Amino acid sequence: MTTGAERIDTLAVVGVGLIGGSFALALREARRVGTVIGVGRGRANLDAAIVRGIVDRAVTLDRPWTREIEAADLVLVATPLGEYPALFSALAAHPPAHAIVTDAGSTKESVIAAVRAHLGAPAARFVPGHPIAGTEHSGASAAFATLFRDRTVVLTPVAETDRAALATVANLWSACGAHVRELDPAVHDRIFAAVSHLPHLLAFALVDLLAARPDADDVFRFAASGFRDFTRIAASSPEMWRDIALANRDALVAALDAYRAQLDNVASMVAAADGAALEAVFARAAAARRAWGAARSTAAAVPADGSRER
Amino acid sequence: MTTGAERIDTLAVVGVGLIGGSFALALREARRVGTVIGVGRGRANLDAAIVRGIVDRAVTLDRPWTREIEAADLVLVATPLGEYPALFSALAAHPPAHAIVTDAGSTKESVIAAVRAHLGAPAARFVPGHPIAGTEHSGASAAFATLFRDRTVVLTPVAETDRAALATVANLWSACGAHVRELDPAVHDRIFAAVSHLPHLLAFALVDLLAARPDADDVFRFAASGFRDFTRIAASSPEMWRDIALANRDALVAALDAYRAQLDNVASMVAAADGAALEAVFARAAAARRAWGAARSTAAAVPADGSRER
Repeated sequence: MTTGAERIDTLAVVGVGLIGGSFALALREARRVGTVIGVGRGRANLDAAIVRGIVDRAVTLDRPWTREIEAADLVLVATPLGEYPALFSALAAHPPAHAIVTDAGSTKESVIAAVRAHLGAPAARFVPGHPIAGTEHSGASAAFATLFRDRTVVLTPVAETDRAALATVANLWSACGAHVRELDPAVHDRIFAAVSHLPHLLAFALVDLLAARPDADDVFRFAASGFRDFTRIAASSPEMWRDIALANRDALVAALDAYRAQLDNVASMVAAADGAALEAVFARAAAARRAWGAARSTAAAVPADGSRER
Repeated sequence: MTTGAERIDTLAVVGVGLIGGSFALALREARRVGTVIGVGRGRANLDAAIVRGIVDRAVTLDRPWTREIEAADLVLVATPLGEYPALFSALAAHPPAHAIVTDAGSTKESVIAAVRAHLGAPAARFVPGHPIAGTEHSGASAAFATLFRDRTVVLTPVAETDRAALATVANLWSACGAHVRELDPAVHDRIFAAVSHLPHLLAFALVDLLAARPDADDVFRFAASGFRDFTRIAASSPEMWRDIALANRDALVAALDAYRAQLDNVASMVAAADGAALEAVFARAAAARRAWGAARSTAAAVPADGSRER
């Protein structure tokens, strides 16, 4: 997208969690940032971020935080999506003098709508982004500098997005080791509803169901590696996923409806003891999953000599 | 269960795949077995098992295989469940002189019914078993000696089960490094329907659904580690899982019905934008999953000084 080596003097990270904290650490390691200012709800998490060297100083959201970051060159918003409208309103009231604003939210149409509704004039300098990285852990203590290495970061610019701002944000994510791609925001939301948001809901739903069983202790006692991997994402932040489900509601409802229809079919096959139909579903799935795994292994084997896409 | 160090002269493994092959390798490594005879459908897989030193000699099922194993001390049946009735009928027609017969099937009530219907007199010397181990890979080439180390093996003896045969099978699984537990067969089937068979169906159903989308390429391109782990089990053997779904049909239908009702509830919460209800589901699930993960880590940290349960 761009080839210059952008360096920013002052980075403000609003929401110093796994994503925001790792972005700051990665830019520090790449020597692309001078000062990092952390902004967040909880003082304890911010203090942990200072101790870990993620941020140089920090301010809580109940203070006049926009004043603290008015000289920032880049503001990364990496809070749960539900916080965005209030954050954008505060930034609109006291806009940083010249900052580019970007975000790390898992949905993009809702974010763009919130930007247009609340951020006001600086909307052109807002670059909607979504790093496809994370673990089931959260908070500054979970952050690490290599989180984005060889991961994809999707940027979803819209008509009003400043192209220079877009290039700067892309360049900084590349400096974190990420592969930057652009997508239309609606396409982004549809894809991630299917491949990320739906699986999270399915995993949460399963673990909640099993935990409510009278024999839950036995069920969990005999759970093994298949269960472990299937449900890893069910340990994710409830607040973050509540906000994602609400922010991407339309696409998620569509994905859920399709899945429920699929599950009705599969349940009918089981009830009817239709082994051939079940085997056909399983065989198509296994072939697709194996092909995906093989393609992913090949992609991961691309030499780290700079020839990979940036 | 027993503390003697049983050693068997001749082991017959019917179905030399991931489970059967790994059992043979583990017993060899523990010096608990003399000769291993492989029995299976495909010559190529059996030849691979010979080359890898898993079995000493092998015979395909279209030959008079029961004659080849008539001197066996232990017969492990580790094929897909759908093969069991034919295998048991063959063994009943030409029973091994003194062998204990055991199995590695993922369901137990159906296996016990097949034993009673087809195996005849040797049923008392049949020990129903289920090693809770595996990967998404199959075949002799996937077998390895440490597959069962620190894994659970469930044995589900019934009234007619010979206690000495049970003790021998338990002892041999312990020699593979496994923790042996006993369960009632119906309880076993209900637990594993919930914690293993249902998740497999959910994962197969999701990948099959996504692969059929017009935008499947895009969806898979942006799939990341959450999807990877959630769907790992969807690469499992379609035939094996078809047979499990059919063999454990009643318990699986019950588990599927409960899950579909749960998913209807969650879908209603999303459609109604009921953030509080969604967060409650997610929070209960995350708490249960984190507690399970923590308990599992603690269990894995038990010192390997012989103090662990055997």
